[in-house]
Parts: sequence; structure tokens; C-alpha cells
Amino acid sequence: MNYSGPTVFELGEVAALKAAVKNFRKVETTLVGSGDDAAVVAVSDGRFVVTTDTMVEGHDFRNDFSSGYDLGFKAVASNVADVAAMGAKPIALVVAMVITRDTTQMWLEDFARGLQSGCNQLAPECEIVGGDLASGEQIVIAVTAHGHLAGANPVLRSGAKSGDKVALAGTLGRAACGLDLLLHQDKTLAKAYDEWVAVQLRPTPPIELGVLAAKSATAMLDVSDSLALDCNRLAEASDVSIELDRTKLEGYAAVLELAAQSMDARDDLVRDPLDWVLYGGEDHALLATFPKDSEIPRGFKVIGEVVKRQKDAVTLGGVVLQARGWDSVSS
Amino acid sequence: MNYSGPTVFELGEVAALKAAVKNFRKVETTLVGSGDDAAVVAVSDGRFVVTTDTMVEGHDFRNDFSSGYDLGFKAVASNVADVAAMGAKPIALVVAMVITRDTTQMWLEDFARGLQSGCNQLAPECEIVGGDLASGEQIVIAVTAHGHLAGANPVLRSGAKSGDKVALAGTLGRAACGLDLLLHQDKTLAKAYDEWVAVQLRPTPPIELGVLAAKSATAMLDVSDSLALDCNRLAEASDVSIELDRTKLEGYAAVLELAAQSMDARDDLVRDPLDWVLYGGEDHALLATFPKDSEIPRGFKVIGEVVKRQKDAVTLGGVVLQARGWDSVSS
Repeated sequence: MNYSGPTVFELGEVAALKAAVKNFRKVETTLVGSGDDAAVVAVSDGRFVVTTDTMVEGHDFRNDFSSGYDLGFKAVASNVADVAAMGAKPIALVVAMVITRDTTQMWLEDFARGLQSGCNQLAPECEIVGGDLASGEQIVIAVTAHGHLAGANPVLRSGAKSGDKVALAGTLGRAACGLDLLLHQDKTLAKAYDEWVAVQLRPTPPIELGVLAAKSATAMLDVSDSLALDCNRLAEASDVSIELDRTKLEGYAAVLELAAQSMDARDDLVRDPLDWVLYGGEDHALLATFPKDSEIPRGFKVIGEVVKRQKDAVTLGGVVLQARGWDSVSS
Repeated sequence: MNYSGPTVFELGEVAALKAAVKNFRKVETTLVGSGDDAAVVAVSDGRFVVTTDTMVEGHDFRNDFSSGYDLGFKAVASNVADVAAMGAKPIALVVAMVITRDTTQMWLEDFARGLQSGCNQLAPECEIVGGDLASGEQIVIAVTAHGHLAGANPVLRSGAKSGDKVALAGTLGRAACGLDLLLHQDKTLAKAYDEWVAVQLRPTPPIELGVLAAKSATAMLDVSDSLALDCNRLAEASDVSIELDRTKLEGYAAVLELAAQSMDARDDLVRDPLDWVLYGGEDHALLATFPKDSEIPRGFKVIGEVVKRQKDAVTLGGVVLQARGWDSVSS
């Protein structure tokens, strides 16, 4: 994370970008790649899926925690998770960036490697087909991701039906635990529990399961802000209620117990790892509902049930679960 | 441009966005609009065009010059011009935004009206299908625009051939003149020549001519940074040289002569309006090349000729025209 050498400003936009993008890998669906006014991408079924997500320095990330590589990886992960949550395969990204006068070419190239690495690991049929570089007072990363449904119906938030099973693919609470480790006064803890820190810095949502789930899921979204918040969103959009099974969620918390205890031992706080699981975001797990008689796709774990709409949208072991989590504007 | 009332931060993201987007108009190609993890858009020929462009407060715009409405309109204009320059029809936009703690709901709604108005006026079959709102220290607007080629071949920068005519649709130099008027110490001038200021604040590129030109153009791009710079880009990409006809460009300068003289009369400078025409960007005219025997589409004006590659990529009346213009990183 020690960046040196010339700044992007010193090199100029054209030279800087040329060096940064030289490692981007091409894929078959890209008919015209970066370098012209626009890119052209093939979607054989005549529809494309599109979503955008923004990360701002000092609000959504800190440069002392995240390397350029981490940020590139995370920008890909958070965006392709939204594509996957529609049941689509990610095929193309464009990256709009604001960098500062101090941003080095080394940082930019590390960021570009992170972008490509995120694609390689999470969405190998996805190409970075374009972008834009602007200058400002803080780094901003706005990725727009595109997907192909390949003939499938898009899976909306609004299709859950009473009787459906609620299931989850991916992890919960790890990214939030990782953030608390990074923020802890005892800096050795982030090293001791670097597996959870890694989820915060470079989340690895199960993108390929989105397409798999699309065959039978009645509703789906990615848990970007928190399980509590995103369950409430799904319930509201589908006009149903969701009853989560506390025992099914305890496993997600159990693996974080040691990290919580280690943090507690070094300050005056008492942490309940279930708070990370319920109210932490950024693992980008896929939350889906499936008809009760259908087979749950491998990789998904049942964590609750959809019931008729009641007063409370979401309950956990009979207790209301408030829509609490990350708010991108007030943070 | 006097905004008051609650901030977006005070209202919360969900309520603020709901009010801001309520006026967005729906179009037929949008299969799933905003509100889910992603939107779904129809492109019947199985290909989509995508481009992204970013505007940063204090670098690309100033809040004392531009209203929220102006910025929304301009963000649409600059992006749909890139889509049109591929020969495609703009059909869908997503808008990633960074706003500050001081941004009022009134500003955000004015911005949203500007977005919709830009679509209505420039690209009536285009819908704002999604977006993202984040918080930061300065306003950033990153629009990603999508277009449909409807079976046509995309028009690249690289297809110009020796013998082709170079033609232009739209205006040149007006946005640059408008910016100088806004920056001038005599604040009455911007009111006196408000037509040129309007081009700077709310450019109106001839979007529909992009699709028309696609039938015969060998190369095309939109003049976003300057005629000089974008002619050089086209020449380099096509490995040809371009000879611009000075007399054909003088008309673009002539209409700006009075504004230049009025500015000169109030300070010690001597302005040549041809500088705005050659080195100013942001009118977003369409610059295209056509085979010499083809009919030039109505709305395009011949301004030069493509010749075999020579030492200088672009000349004007026999004198080399340097690739000088707007650099988004160093500005």
C-alpha cells in the first residue's frame, strides 16, 4: 500500500489510462471494446441488465485500510452481485472514476489489477469495456455493471409468495466484523483475524449461484446493506412477511465469536456477533425465496419462511427485526 | 438557483430519491425500471452500446454558474452525444451521484427535472432506469448511457478513408464562448449573450443525426474536448490525415464575433473567436467522415477532407492544427 512515482496528473490521462488498462482481458461478448466513444456488447437474447454503485473515499472506504487493488476488486464484487441478484450473468463493466492530484500511476495500475482480478475470480465472462477519468478532491469509484439473462426471466424483489422458503448463499457478518477489526484500537487484531478483514476489503459473493437460482427463485436480492434491511426490502416489495429462524443464523455468528471475544478483551465493550450477521452489510450474499416444494439449489441454505403479510415485515424467532443497516447518504 | 428547505441527508436516501424520480418518464424498451437490484432493457438486435462520463464540482462545473437543472440536462447531453456518435439511438441511462451534506432536496429534484428534460429534448426514447446516491465532499455526476444500433454497424473513429469528406453537425465554439462570458469580470455580458451561455450550460447536440449519419458515415465521434483534439483523434485512429477548410469554419466563428468584441472592450485582451471554434469543447457537435461520392446527410456541413496519412495529422488551411483542448484529468 506504499505508492510512489509519478502522479496520473503528471503523466496525463491518455498515457495513464493506456498503462492501467493494458492488462484488461477481452471476452467474446465485447464487440467493440474501450477506446471509442462507446463500447458495443452482445446480448443474444435481446435484453441487458444494468446496475450502478458508487464508492467514495472517506465515506465508503479509507485509503489506509484499502489498497487500490482492494478497491478495484470490491467495486467489481458489489456491482456484479447486483447483476447476479437479477439471475443474470455479468458480461460488461464501465468504470467512472474521480482521482485527485496526488493519485499516483502506481495506485491506478493497482486499482486496474484489482478490477481485472475481481472479474477473473467472480465473473470470468465479464470485461471492463470502458470508463472515464476525472479530477477532484477525493477518490470516487462509480461502476456500472451489465448482465445477460440468456432467456431467463429476471428475478425481482417482488415475487415472493406466502409459503416460500427463504434461503441464502454466501456469508453474513464477516465484512462487518472485518471493519470493526480494522477500526479497533489494537491494530494486531486485524492481522490475527485477517480472514474477516479480507471479506471487508475484497468480498467474494457467490455470483455463479445467481444464474443457478434464477431457474426457481421467486424473488432475489443481494445483501449489500444488511440482512435485516434487505429482508425488509424483499418483504415490502413482495407484500409478504418473513419469519427468520434464529437457529439457522447462529452458524454465521459462531465463526465470528472468537474475533468478538478478542476485541472485547481489549476494550470495555461486549459484542454480540449476531449483530454483525443481522445488521452488517457488504458480504453481498444472495438472499432468495423459493417455492416450498422446489429443490433448494446447492449453495443456498434455508434461513426462514415467507408468510402472509402481517404487521411486522420481518421477524426473528418471533421478535420484530427492524430495517436497520447501512445508509449510503447519511454515512 | 436559490435552493432552500431540507437537505437530502435530513430526508434520507429513500424518501429523497422517491420524490426526485417521480417525474421520470417510462419508455417501451425498459422491461424492468428503477427500484430493483438492476434494470432490464430490451435491445431487439441483440447488442447494446454503452458509454460513461463524469462531471465533478469545481472541476467540470461550478454551482454558481449551473443550476441543478442545468447539470442534469448537460449530463444527459454529453452522454447521449457519445451514444449518437456510434450511430445508435439512446435508450437508457443510469445516474451515479455523489452529493454533499448540504445538498438540498430542492436541488436534487431540480437536477432530476434537468435529466428528464434533457431526455425529452435530445433523446425522447431514452429513460433514466437506475441510479445510486452516495455522500461526499463535492458533487459528482457519473452518467452511463446506453444505445440501440437497430441492426446498423457501429460507426467507429477508425474507419475514415483517404478521399472521404469531413462533415460536422451541430455548433462549434459556443459553449467555450459561453464559459468565457460566465468567467468575465463584467457580469452583465453573460446576460447580454445568454444564447452562448445557454450552450455552455445546456448543450443541445443533434442526437437524431447520429442514427441518420450511421447509414453512410465511415467514422464518427462527438466533439467533446475540441475540434482540434477530436480531429486529431479521428485521424490517428483511422491512420489518415485531415485537411480542414478555414473558410468553412469561419461561419462558426462569425456569430461569436460580437461577444468577443464586447469582452475585449471591457478588458485588455484581444480574442479571436476562431480559437473557441478550434479549441473549445462541450457543444458536442457530431464530427463524421463520408465517402466522397455519397450524399452528405441533411444537417451535416462539409468542413474538410480526409487525405493519406502525412506528417501532420490535422491541418487547417495548410497549417498544422495541434491536438489542444480540454484535458479532464489536469483540469
